[in-house]
Amino acid sequence: MTLSHIAVLGAEVKKASVEVAQASGAVRQEALRAAARALRAAQGEILEANEADLVAAQAAEIGATAIDRLRLDEGRIEAMARGLETVAGLPDPVGVTVDGSIRPNGLKVTRVRRPLGVIGVIYENRPNVTADAAGLCIAAGNAAFLRGSSTSIRSNVAVTAALRAGLVAVGLPAAAITLVEDTSHETAAAFMQLEGIIDCLIPRGGPALIGSMRAHATVPYVLDGGGNCHVYVDRAADLDMAIAIIVNAKTQRPGVCNAMESLVLHESVAAEVLDRLSSAMPEVRLLGDEAACGFRDDIEAATEEDFHIEFLDLVATVRVVADLDEAIDHVNRHSSGHSEAIVTDDVVAAERFLNEVDAAAVLLNASTRFVDGSELGLGAEVGISTQKIHARGPMGLEALTSIRWVIRGEGQTRT
Amino acid sequence: MTLSHIAVLGAEVKKASVEVAQASGAVRQEALRAAARALRAAQGEILEANEADLVAAQAAEIGATAIDRLRLDEGRIEAMARGLETVAGLPDPVGVTVDGSIRPNGLKVTRVRRPLGVIGVIYENRPNVTADAAGLCIAAGNAAFLRGSSTSIRSNVAVTAALRAGLVAVGLPAAAITLVEDTSHETAAAFMQLEGIIDCLIPRGGPALIGSMRAHATVPYVLDGGGNCHVYVDRAADLDMAIAIIVNAKTQRPGVCNAMESLVLHESVAAEVLDRLSSAMPEVRLLGDEAACGFRDDIEAATEEDFHIEFLDLVATVRVVADLDEAIDHVNRHSSGHSEAIVTDDVVAAERFLNEVDAAAVLLNASTRFVDGSELGLGAEVGISTQKIHARGPMGLEALTSIRWVIRGEGQTRT
Repeated sequence: MTLSHIAVLGAEVKKASVEVAQASGAVRQEALRAAARALRAAQGEILEANEADLVAAQAAEIGATAIDRLRLDEGRIEAMARGLETVAGLPDPVGVTVDGSIRPNGLKVTRVRRPLGVIGVIYENRPNVTADAAGLCIAAGNAAFLRGSSTSIRSNVAVTAALRAGLVAVGLPAAAITLVEDTSHETAAAFMQLEGIIDCLIPRGGPALIGSMRAHATVPYVLDGGGNCHVYVDRAADLDMAIAIIVNAKTQRPGVCNAMESLVLHESVAAEVLDRLSSAMPEVRLLGDEAACGFRDDIEAATEEDFHIEFLDLVATVRVVADLDEAIDHVNRHSSGHSEAIVTDDVVAAERFLNEVDAAAVLLNASTRFVDGSELGLGAEVGISTQKIHARGPMGLEALTSIRWVIRGEGQTRT
Repeated sequence: MTLSHIAVLGAEVKKASVEVAQASGAVRQEALRAAARALRAAQGEILEANEADLVAAQAAEIGATAIDRLRLDEGRIEAMARGLETVAGLPDPVGVTVDGSIRPNGLKVTRVRRPLGVIGVIYENRPNVTADAAGLCIAAGNAAFLRGSSTSIRSNVAVTAALRAGLVAVGLPAAAITLVEDTSHETAAAFMQLEGIIDCLIPRGGPALIGSMRAHATVPYVLDGGGNCHVYVDRAADLDMAIAIIVNAKTQRPGVCNAMESLVLHESVAAEVLDRLSSAMPEVRLLGDEAACGFRDDIEAATEEDFHIEFLDLVATVRVVADLDEAIDHVNRHSSGHSEAIVTDDVVAAERFLNEVDAAAVLLNASTRFVDGSELGLGAEVGISTQKIHARGPMGLEALTSIRWVIRGEGQTRT
């Protein structure tokens, strides 16, 4: 494959996207059900391809976490298939009239949801993203143009073949789900610059991928950045509730973007919260400011830099504040714009925090772990946007559409 | 001003944006009314500054169209002031709850409109954009960070001073409307890369500016591109209506983005339409395909390239098609994604065109000239988006906000 070949592939995906956009919701949903059946039927081939990826990854001495993300088994293939069936059952966003009016000159103006067209997805080594992302794209009437990592290429090729069988079964073009099989850095940059082909590019990966997007992408994109999420325990917090939320947000799944990375404590409750946490989550290493270090011997001194880190591990920073203003200021200064929580029984403090903290999701008396598409009722998500334009927070089917103007007249001209 | 100074300016705007976002709608609206009064009061200073810009522009032998765009007079200053008052009277989009639900675990989930934060606007030599763009930004709870052209710098400085007087009059920080006074190319590139400062960048200008944005911008942006707009006259069109729409779309204001640039004619009506146009708009030069040239001696042969041109002048291309499929295909191949119209009495043809043509706005039996914010009921517009993410078509106050998640619980944790 050459760089010009990626443009040829792109033209095929673009052409296919028109057919998907014109297909009925019933046809698109049936394509996903057929793809789920094809995935189950292809289990043997997929596991064989995945085994080859795993052997190569182990030979390349890739880390244990990456190996775990790469590994497929019967359960994970079944989860991909069920994911497609779940998405097939979601309400179709295409064609929904969002609002409308009749203008004084009689023009009937409506705004209608339509597919974006071609969604580009760049992702790292989890092969399940191939099925999850493609399913959401098709459900919202788009074509999926996928560029995974070299590590998972054999698995991705096998999964894509099954997904395409689902499209073909209902008469949709196979090219509506297209995987870029050349995983060189050069094709990644070329992919990010397919102007006129990719209508929206979504990265699923770490800071290196995000940095590369900012440097190279010339097509529109939505950033799925990291989560440096805070939980603030106010002076008026129910401390039993606060401890439960902190433990859940930090330890239930520390490696994900909606896990708590930093704890902010009002000075009047800091001693008790830190004392209770030493038995409630003894496995978590804490890095604190001077005040926090004064409360417990085992809290290490944090640097200013530490407060900006997304640890994705059993580590958290602790900051002690004198009041709500200082808490809001600290959170806004360090937040990555993902999810920020306050624990309090004080209605005024709660509303101020919810209004003044600038993040995709703000939570009162709930764990940051709830900020994902399934938990919030979207059914599934293609990513979590940490930017402000187009979509903020978990992106479901709606985020894969755009709203356009449909104007009906009886010969009106402008004066 | 140095490049690092632009970052210092940016930090001031960012800080001011937090205050604007927290101000009530009434305060923001009063700021715009005060700014309108200040503009009128500063008429003398503004006209003096504008005269200096005009003298410099004439010395630099800038074209007549550019000079006209640059020129202010009493009427144009009054129009800016009234524009601010109009925007002050629009419904406040900030804080509107878009939708919500209560999850099975009791979490109350709402999605609420909030300001984007700092809106960057890069524009060319029309000083009225300073007031129009700043007014919309403030009305939607944002700060405006403005970077106009060197040609209009004196006018822009004078207009900005008046606008800031309006902010200060209601207790908002002057920095919430900030103009970059260094108009070098270097600061333009630095401006487009103010990551963490500019939440959304909107260009108002021609293809050179758009190209520069694609090449340099690393902050999120919405493209306000050109309009290669088509009018298709179907076999089932009312030809009186078709002629009226074509003449209006082409000649009422040929220099704007929603003017018709290309006429697509069903072969069964082409002869009559072209014949009637020779008297209905004799001043328009037509460039046609072979079939079109066969109908009238004065139609010049168009090259394939001509069909991609946004003339912004009394020129149009003509394409004759055998059927609706060919018309839709031609429009989709050449459209810039702005506004596309069909004239027909055939309901099936109409709905197919409206569904299958991919543009920000599609029109049935109406002039493309209606595609602007005022005509469609937005009250005003900050630009017309020709991309698909975030906003499509005319962008009013809503396009200057984003929707975020507000989640209220009673101690819920995830299992």
